[in-house]
Amino acid sequence: MTMTESRPALDRLLSPRSIAMVGASNARTRIGGSVFANLLRAFPGEVHPIHPKDEVVQGRPAFRSVAHLPEPVDMAVVAVPAAAVVDVVAECAARGIGGATVITSGFAETGAEGRELQDRLTEVARTTGIRLIGPNCIGYMNAHDGVMANFMLTADEPLPIAGPVALVSQSGGFGSYITHKAILAGLRLGWFVSTGNEADVNVAGVLRHLVERPEVGVLLSFIETLRDPEVFIATARRAAELDKPMVLLKAGRSEEAARAAMSHTASIVGSATVLDAVCRQYGVIVAQTMEELLDLGTIFQDGRRARGPRTIVMTASGGAGVLLADEARHAGLSVPVLPEEEQRDLAAKMPVPFYGSTGNPVDTTAQTTAMPGAYRQVLMSVAGSPSADMLAAVTWATPGPANDAIVEMYQTTDRPVAILSTAWTEQFQAAGVPTYTDPRRAMAALGALAAYSARGPLPPDPAAFVPDAARVREARELIAAAAPQTVLLESTGKRVLARYGIPVTREELVHDAEAAVEAAARVGGPVALKVMSYRLPHKSDAGAIRLGLAGAEEVRAGYRDMLAEVAARAPEAVVEGVLVQQMVPARLELTCGVQRDPVFGPMVAVGLGGVLVEVLAEAALLRPPFDAATAEKALGGLLGGRLLHGRRGLSEPERRAVAEIMVRLGELALELDEVAEIDVNPLRVADGRVCAADALIVVRHG
Amino acid sequence: MTMTESRPALDRLLSPRSIAMVGASNARTRIGGSVFANLLRAFPGEVHPIHPKDEVVQGRPAFRSVAHLPEPVDMAVVAVPAAAVVDVVAECAARGIGGATVITSGFAETGAEGRELQDRLTEVARTTGIRLIGPNCIGYMNAHDGVMANFMLTADEPLPIAGPVALVSQSGGFGSYITHKAILAGLRLGWFVSTGNEADVNVAGVLRHLVERPEVGVLLSFIETLRDPEVFIATARRAAELDKPMVLLKAGRSEEAARAAMSHTASIVGSATVLDAVCRQYGVIVAQTMEELLDLGTIFQDGRRARGPRTIVMTASGGAGVLLADEARHAGLSVPVLPEEEQRDLAAKMPVPFYGSTGNPVDTTAQTTAMPGAYRQVLMSVAGSPSADMLAAVTWATPGPANDAIVEMYQTTDRPVAILSTAWTEQFQAAGVPTYTDPRRAMAALGALAAYSARGPLPPDPAAFVPDAARVREARELIAAAAPQTVLLESTGKRVLARYGIPVTREELVHDAEAAVEAAARVGGPVALKVMSYRLPHKSDAGAIRLGLAGAEEVRAGYRDMLAEVAARAPEAVVEGVLVQQMVPARLELTCGVQRDPVFGPMVAVGLGGVLVEVLAEAALLRPPFDAATAEKALGGLLGGRLLHGRRGLSEPERRAVAEIMVRLGELALELDEVAEIDVNPLRVADGRVCAADALIVVRHG
Repeated sequence: MTMTESRPALDRLLSPRSIAMVGASNARTRIGGSVFANLLRAFPGEVHPIHPKDEVVQGRPAFRSVAHLPEPVDMAVVAVPAAAVVDVVAECAARGIGGATVITSGFAETGAEGRELQDRLTEVARTTGIRLIGPNCIGYMNAHDGVMANFMLTADEPLPIAGPVALVSQSGGFGSYITHKAILAGLRLGWFVSTGNEADVNVAGVLRHLVERPEVGVLLSFIETLRDPEVFIATARRAAELDKPMVLLKAGRSEEAARAAMSHTASIVGSATVLDAVCRQYGVIVAQTMEELLDLGTIFQDGRRARGPRTIVMTASGGAGVLLADEARHAGLSVPVLPEEEQRDLAAKMPVPFYGSTGNPVDTTAQTTAMPGAYRQVLMSVAGSPSADMLAAVTWATPGPANDAIVEMYQTTDRPVAILSTAWTEQFQAAGVPTYTDPRRAMAALGALAAYSARGPLPPDPAAFVPDAARVREARELIAAAAPQTVLLESTGKRVLARYGIPVTREELVHDAEAAVEAAARVGGPVALKVMSYRLPHKSDAGAIRLGLAGAEEVRAGYRDMLAEVAARAPEAVVEGVLVQQMVPARLELTCGVQRDPVFGPMVAVGLGGVLVEVLAEAALLRPPFDAATAEKALGGLLGGRLLHGRRGLSEPERRAVAEIMVRLGELALELDEVAEIDVNPLRVADGRVCAADALIVVRHG
Repeated sequence: MTMTESRPALDRLLSPRSIAMVGASNARTRIGGSVFANLLRAFPGEVHPIHPKDEVVQGRPAFRSVAHLPEPVDMAVVAVPAAAVVDVVAECAARGIGGATVITSGFAETGAEGRELQDRLTEVARTTGIRLIGPNCIGYMNAHDGVMANFMLTADEPLPIAGPVALVSQSGGFGSYITHKAILAGLRLGWFVSTGNEADVNVAGVLRHLVERPEVGVLLSFIETLRDPEVFIATARRAAELDKPMVLLKAGRSEEAARAAMSHTASIVGSATVLDAVCRQYGVIVAQTMEELLDLGTIFQDGRRARGPRTIVMTASGGAGVLLADEARHAGLSVPVLPEEEQRDLAAKMPVPFYGSTGNPVDTTAQTTAMPGAYRQVLMSVAGSPSADMLAAVTWATPGPANDAIVEMYQTTDRPVAILSTAWTEQFQAAGVPTYTDPRRAMAALGALAAYSARGPLPPDPAAFVPDAARVREARELIAAAAPQTVLLESTGKRVLARYGIPVTREELVHDAEAAVEAAARVGGPVALKVMSYRLPHKSDAGAIRLGLAGAEEVRAGYRDMLAEVAARAPEAVVEGVLVQQMVPARLELTCGVQRDPVFGPMVAVGLGGVLVEVLAEAALLRPPFDAATAEKALGGLLGGRLLHGRRGLSEPERRAVAEIMVRLGELALELDEVAEIDVNPLRVADGRVCAADALIVVRHG
């Protein structure tokens, strides 16, 4: 279900000034007691327990029911048995409460009956305007306002240090798990929201709300299924505008995992490949692992940005320096040799004799580390080097002057810094120093930061797309004429493509041999003949194609011979005509088309075609609308960049032409809902020109 | 420098019964004091300090010099200034000491002068038979014999728990770093050896020694450059034979990193791609990151093997289950749905109502975890499931009954287990439970274990390769006839290939048009004509090629026309003859050949060819000798397996033919040292047949 913008905002739900809890309990080992104890920890406003019998819950006077509340609080936490939830939430709405956090399980995740219960809950939200988190979640934390409406931590565990990081997780249990890890890793979590079954509010909606909050600087999310693609994309654009990185971890990528996700979230899981492509298109970083999600939160939370990719690696171990330089390269960073005067400067600060290196990696050797003054001086120098944009330094977790110097350096520079340490340390966490325990992870984080810092302009707003009524009308006429057939003839399909400005082979549809001869003369050069029939999807199997016919005689003979063969091999096929088609050369064959994803709708795909189409199943995917620059960038991601930069790859004009075709296919898919699928194969590329030589379009008739 | 097998073994050096230390100091903050304090910690035999002035060092009576020692100890640690090292080591050898661990820096890593000093050290080792670790290292640890001849830990840090893991690191500093991390991660290190500049003993030699030690079960190594490829390969084969996994982390993969490695180790760095390929061929696992090296040590150290890839994932969080199932798939494992009766069994142990899943991932929900008895029962059941080979379970680092149950389960099953925890815990470390902090890392470890457990038969022993004298002689005659030319004519190159049983196009070398016509008739079908000249490397640029000539007339005309064009466009080219060549069809074009790596020698490469050769630069690499089965397996790794299993990929007979060609190219490279490079491009594949259509061979004349 898609929530429209016209519904009440999430402020009362997520930033309440007063709270009630239905199901609050005196038994702290039970969820109702654990959540209520959390609510009491830091919230400055009123927190009212609702309890049918107990007079007092954890020291607070209790009310019999929601109706008995002295005033309509902003938010109610609901932790009562599933069967009672709908009525309780309806009561909350009736009492004027703005939002409810429904912890209770036993809804859509349990089967048909639970699904029905959940639908009723959704209906209450929709009709009354109350906004809901959950059900089947562990609640949320808004640390800035002291709201601990959750059981992700127990009341005896320390509260996280509030900071700019927001984490939104569909899964409650995993959200709790990752929150524990985030705290251990020194992440400053200001917000944690688990959305559970998403009867009302979903991950995209929470992100859309949080991106506007001034205290939020980084948006992390963990999802299994994305319910609101338009809101997600709008959030991604807004986040880029506000310079707030968004990082997403997606579960349910494999078939087996998707099976598990569908069983426990009771929702359809879209294609992970499509989600990745949409994220890439709109600047959302997709984390490959849970630790990467946290690693990126760690590098982004101090808000520093990189002026470029040049990184100094400083270490007391040559071996570690080499490994970090490897990882820098792997992450798209450079480790430039420092200019001689800078090296002389550094050398002057090192002990004598000095067996390390000042080149970069700067290898101070263990001797320097053992001399605190020297180590500090070298560290401060490299942090200020005009030849670099970022700094990575290696240390041991053991406290001492070296780590003191690192903290001082971090606090006096405004450049991005990543420290590789044997373990996380309290000292670094207290000072906010981004710390990693593996060279790859440290460099990957700096690499992501450099890429984010250098991101391009905002992609166009999908909402701004305006259809072209004239071409829509003409294309619809062509499609309607084919009804009730759902697979258009090649000749029709290419007329539709041509209407959208996509270059196709010169060709004419004819109905006898002499017309074919005349058409061939107009088309020019040797031609191909193809029988057009709704019953011949595989033309070559039925002999329904002839290639390279030159001159009237060959065309005439080929025509007759072909029709005779088709009549013999596929007598049931009704021949709608014969296509006389230009033969186009190809140095490279691409395949491109449109498919519709259940979550994100139409997606334009381009990949390598021809003989190797089965061997190499890689494609660039874009969600329309997009511009030609975006399409060219996506082409650059194909085959590790070699499609553009390989010696036999696409030339400049070819690249532009392919990008333009992608843009047009996207417009077509947006304008013509009834087009279910387009497959242009091959798209022939040679000598600066690109041309659709065959095309399959599948439509639905209204 | 390659150490031959005839040199003294490493037993006295690495398992000494008595030790002396030259440079032992009373100042514990200095390296000489720190290492000596370590030596005194756990060694049961005599440890003699050598000191020119002090009577007593750290409580032990000191000797004035090596010559004053009361008996020839097995091993001496040397930590004196670089200038004194050569004399000290010579004295050690003269006194009958078996080995020396040279800590001192200031050798080859510092430039030409240091390099000379190091060469003298090598010479002392070679002439006297004393074996050396270092120089420029941090020493070694043999925990089983209580030898702490190092400063990787200080004497106030706890000793590692001795166990089956051996870690050999070229880099001392990084070795120390990784050792600290290994201890934190619960790795049971029995051996740590840093080899430093490798004046005598190198990483391969230490691994060769350790693989035979009964207490060693897992061999981890960190290298920047591999000095003894034959020993390394022999060790890899021996490790596979003894069922002892070898895992290697290589630094210096990128150009920038290689620059750093060359500067601080003063050695040539071979190609990382070639090293990867050799490791794959001989069953050595290449870790991609430092943490992966440790993760694999963690999963291998208990010696458990997997009967198969079927994994049960058990979690209290649906979201974590989905992520783990993703990662299982990513790691090549399966997460099979459990049979109904097993699911019924599990369900009976769960609380009521139960909103989790018994399917797999088994989602116990937080309710079950909160009921210790139920959690333990479910855990023990899944650990004993007949439907699985391995178990992954998720927990929080907080101590409690759930973690007690995990320890009990681990100790009662003999199956591989990986626990995903928010952090490492003392309880799990004490019990040896393999623990991971990230889903990908846990599953990657289980995946590597499953792959290792299912490894195939030992690859053939390179030492058993016997050259075929007859074909060597014939090939050498062909090569000699081309002298002084170093690039053989295509016609000559293909005769060499044919002599090795590699199928080439049917072809004849002729010298006039009429001979061409006759040859074309014998070759059959349409033919190609190619001018053979040492001065025409790019035939088509000079018009020196004609394709698809059919019949006497076309051949005759083509011949004359071609020679006229060449005479006009490349008048300086001496024409050695014209090759009349069969035209062979191609559904797929491959390119294959031989190149020589500075470290590993000849390597056979096969990759995709044709128009896309520049676009797709991926190749399978094998070090000869190898058998056809190994070659077929390598082909299976190309293009993500699609070269074999794609719809248009290689058929069964084509795959066999390509594999056979690879084997033959390998034999050729081994037998003919003078062949510097072979480039067969294209290798045409169609209809079950494979044929070399062009070939370039570069030779050196003796």
